[in-house]
Amino acid sequence: MAGPVVHRTFSLERAYPAPPARVFAAFANPETKRRWFAEDAGVEVDEFTLDFRVGGFERTRFRFVGGAPMRNDTLFLDIVPDERIVFAYALTAEEARTSAALTTVELAADRGGTRLLLTEQVAFLDGVDGTASRRSGWGALLDRLGDAIRRVD
Amino acid sequence: MAGPVVHRTFSLERAYPAPPARVFAAFANPETKRRWFAEDAGVEVDEFTLDFRVGGFERTRFRFVGGAPMRNDTLFLDIVPDERIVFAYALTAEEARTSAALTTVELAADRGGTRLLLTEQVAFLDGVDGTASRRSGWGALLDRLGDAIRRVD
Repeated sequence: MAGPVVHRTFSLERAYPAPPARVFAAFANPETKRRWFAEDAGVEVDEFTLDFRVGGFERTRFRFVGGAPMRNDTLFLDIVPDERIVFAYALTAEEARTSAALTTVELAADRGGTRLLLTEQVAFLDGVDGTASRRSGWGALLDRLGDAIRRVD
Repeated sequence: MAGPVVHRTFSLERAYPAPPARVFAAFANPETKRRWFAEDAGVEVDEFTLDFRVGGFERTRFRFVGGAPMRNDTLFLDIVPDERIVFAYALTAEEARTSAALTTVELAADRGGTRLLLTEQVAFLDGVDGTASRRSGWGALLDRLGDAIRRVD
């Protein structure tokens, strides 16, 4: 029997030395997004597809080296170019869905760069509050996004 | 330019004099779901389709009589038969997306009936906190769900 779901909300903020259009492009461009979002040391990516439009899906299948197959299925719910991306996603580990989330990314021009605000409203389906690790996972991704933005040019 | 998104979470609880399997069926069966969820006095339903499975969509296009066209696009993220339904949806009014939400419905057997707990994590994209009206909207729907459960049989 399913245990009670744990609902949490958290936010992260980053400042990037690039205009909003460039930060937005790092979410919209499949090659760039794959680089900062899916590829990482210790991760094997079995599939990454991105259909970046409202109603489109992003699908990632991956394994931590030696680990079980995991999936991220993301649906884009709202996109305002250079300003906002809202998506819902579910994570599946070995055929068990472990969490679902609604994530809002807001971009604002700020002193020649971009202020990014990410707000995630998450439901932990296994009943375990995974906020700390989810938050640090997104923190690492947003840092990698910063590296990707600096690298492109 | 897009204003800041307002993020909120609220819960509603209901007790129904029917077992969880019957409450669950009222979400899973397209005819029953349409009756309590889409059809209502003063509402014209232009489309209602329900593909009740993980990864499936429910789409409702409707108008309040004399009003503008509205849409609800729902994706099912997690389904545990008779126990849990998790879905994400976006509401669109006249081509403008006004909100996105992640909704968890949990069902538990309770004294011969069912206790339903609905938790919605919502992002109001127009920057206006619509929690009170969203909450009362779901309250009315859950009451209609109760009527639908009693009517079937």
